[in-house]
Amino acid sequence: MKAKRQRRVAIISTGDELVQGRTVDTNATYIADRLGAIGIEAQSIVTVGDYPEQIEWAWHHSLARADIVIATGGLGPTADDRTSETLAHVADAELYLDEEQAQRIRRFFEVLKRPMPENNLKQARFPVGAEIIPNELGTAPGYRLAVPQGQRRPIAVVLPGVPREMKAMLDTQVIPWILSQSEDDRSIVSRTFQTFGMSESALDEALMGAIDPDEARLSFRASFPQVSVRIAVIGKQSEAEHKLEALSEIVRARLGDAVVAEGDVTMEQVVGELLKRHKQTLATAESCSGGLIGNRITNVAGSSEYYLGGVIAYSNELKRKTLSVSPETLSRFGAVSEETACEMALGVRNLSQASLGIATTGIAGPDGGTKEKPVGTVTIALAADGLGSTNVRARSYQLWGNRDWIKILTSQVALDWVRRHLLGRDPLASDFGLRGSRWQSRS
Amino acid sequence: MKAKRQRRVAIISTGDELVQGRTVDTNATYIADRLGAIGIEAQSIVTVGDYPEQIEWAWHHSLARADIVIATGGLGPTADDRTSETLAHVADAELYLDEEQAQRIRRFFEVLKRPMPENNLKQARFPVGAEIIPNELGTAPGYRLAVPQGQRRPIAVVLPGVPREMKAMLDTQVIPWILSQSEDDRSIVSRTFQTFGMSESALDEALMGAIDPDEARLSFRASFPQVSVRIAVIGKQSEAEHKLEALSEIVRARLGDAVVAEGDVTMEQVVGELLKRHKQTLATAESCSGGLIGNRITNVAGSSEYYLGGVIAYSNELKRKTLSVSPETLSRFGAVSEETACEMALGVRNLSQASLGIATTGIAGPDGGTKEKPVGTVTIALAADGLGSTNVRARSYQLWGNRDWIKILTSQVALDWVRRHLLGRDPLASDFGLRGSRWQSRS
Repeated sequence: MKAKRQRRVAIISTGDELVQGRTVDTNATYIADRLGAIGIEAQSIVTVGDYPEQIEWAWHHSLARADIVIATGGLGPTADDRTSETLAHVADAELYLDEEQAQRIRRFFEVLKRPMPENNLKQARFPVGAEIIPNELGTAPGYRLAVPQGQRRPIAVVLPGVPREMKAMLDTQVIPWILSQSEDDRSIVSRTFQTFGMSESALDEALMGAIDPDEARLSFRASFPQVSVRIAVIGKQSEAEHKLEALSEIVRARLGDAVVAEGDVTMEQVVGELLKRHKQTLATAESCSGGLIGNRITNVAGSSEYYLGGVIAYSNELKRKTLSVSPETLSRFGAVSEETACEMALGVRNLSQASLGIATTGIAGPDGGTKEKPVGTVTIALAADGLGSTNVRARSYQLWGNRDWIKILTSQVALDWVRRHLLGRDPLASDFGLRGSRWQSRS
Repeated sequence: MKAKRQRRVAIISTGDELVQGRTVDTNATYIADRLGAIGIEAQSIVTVGDYPEQIEWAWHHSLARADIVIATGGLGPTADDRTSETLAHVADAELYLDEEQAQRIRRFFEVLKRPMPENNLKQARFPVGAEIIPNELGTAPGYRLAVPQGQRRPIAVVLPGVPREMKAMLDTQVIPWILSQSEDDRSIVSRTFQTFGMSESALDEALMGAIDPDEARLSFRASFPQVSVRIAVIGKQSEAEHKLEALSEIVRARLGDAVVAEGDVTMEQVVGELLKRHKQTLATAESCSGGLIGNRITNVAGSSEYYLGGVIAYSNELKRKTLSVSPETLSRFGAVSEETACEMALGVRNLSQASLGIATTGIAGPDGGTKEKPVGTVTIALAADGLGSTNVRARSYQLWGNRDWIKILTSQVALDWVRRHLLGRDPLASDFGLRGSRWQSRS
């Protein structure tokens, strides 16, 4: 579905590093995404280097076909930052020094206890008529400027190129301003659901008919191995919030356990929060994931509170010596088996005295597969008090993709086992959307 | 330094997903980078959605100011793939069906044993006058087309949007063609050096005067924690290769051990190759890096040949139980100390019977720092036969950045210790460009 068109918006990115291929232009993508959330599809994105004639070219052609042109970059203090002088030329306006902004920049350096290079005051110079957009995070303010084009008066919106500063200014000032332009008192409220275990099309199907496109915008973004689902509602603030809450309830009901988190939260953060809430500790016994689960868990600040550590049991020798996997199990069932996984999970739990022990073993490839256990065969086991009669359960899956993907998926499924277990669900009750996964429970 | 301008080249990217912010445009960056390598800075990058009038707008303005316009996307089989019909319209040319390409597309599906959707033949339709650029990896061929603009005849180069296909066609066909256009018989040869332990400015300084900008182009690309150095020489093939070899010798001599690898090779691949070559095995004892070293090593296919595994000894309990770190050492020197690191490295080596044991312990933050051992304090230890009198050495560093960066830097320094050791160098002899790193060797 094409987004509805309201105001026509174009995007300009400036910077030598962009046209030289040294930096990927994520600013333009971010702006386009935020515009999409309010139902506006960008007309064009034009990227040019720091040359006045190129910047002028970009402005001319973008202003000619849009009501609003959002530009980033070229607001720095050095000689090759030319956005304002070029735009002033295009708009046939003079530049003036804004005393208030100049003071602010001076204070910025005072706070940092650093001398201010005089050229920084360049960032307090604006085309006459500019409405300043404050920058809370850096020295370069942005601004809006009406640029006459015959009968039309499209608006230029100029923002700094530093992503952190640009994003904050866009989200808190530019997007609300665009909304205020298009209708009286509408604002946008949105919520993102992080999901795992359903494909984009399965999510789409599950939500079919739940969201009236006239009421809200539903969008999916896949970031392997998760898919995020975003609902955005435009309307009067209180009504929109009410509507969003109602739609969120529907999403939660329809997607169920596939929703890992709401907001900008990772699986490992969710698992950490659950472990803390339930006052439990975790240890890992990793073979095919090779330390990735430990790495993900310890990416979360404060994880030492609930993560005791684990064993990367890549060799059978280490499986035996540190995790007490029996030589009989290894020779009879092989390293990649539910029997071995169970002994690994029990072994690391016993070794560390953690409440939960999670284990992975599998064939990440590209070599090592057999007809019976092809590349992508992965077994997960979880050991915990009261889990079946033996305090441990395991299941095998047939994963797909290259070595990296198999490792990432393995770590994701293992973390989701812990999440589901702590939520009181049966981790074996889901196939995580993994096609061809085999049900071979054992308890 | 601005790149020298030869031919003027502009880039067009088409796709709804780009102007809707769903996908970051890495194609344009890739093309710009490859152009930069042959001394051409892109005039502009214009991105538009899949609308004929927008695509036409992009072509008009790009052709007006460039000698060559490289466009990606819009060559697919579906109705919203409109590049060829739009360009044909701009060039005032008819579309024709190329029988040879149609056959090729039919065979492509035969090999896959899949029925060919009839609309795929759309990909065999080209504007009259097009010179076809074969696509070895997919169904959509690209092409070149001269597009008259008054007296000028700029060339449109059209490539599919699938990055893998686009890159192969650009590298093997388009770039050589551009070079063949600009002068008689020049080609470009280049080499990339992966470095670690020197900052971009330190590398720049070290190479000062080594490369005459008229002879070769030197470029740096930082991809934390590594910096790659690339030399590109343009000239007659044999002369350029000879020149590149001579310049490479200078680079190797000036950068010394900071060069981790040549080509598109990771640190963990280099370490793996060295371990195989020296028939040695490795085990890891990770505290603050939390499994990241094991994860990186096991990202390399075949790593089970030399990596035995290790312990993620996050808790002191696991340091004692699995690595035999003595309670006295822990209580007297603390978990983050060279004494503890040494016992960890010896412990994991003994446990696994690996030739080498590498250990990390430190404070990744944001909490847990003290005045004496602030966040970023990290100790590395390596255990190996004949390393000092005790078969183990350690050193502490003061790293910087957030938790992620400290973990990544820790893993990188640890892997570089292994690399340097296997090369017969003293790992303690470098400070890895880590400012403020403390020299506290022990052997």
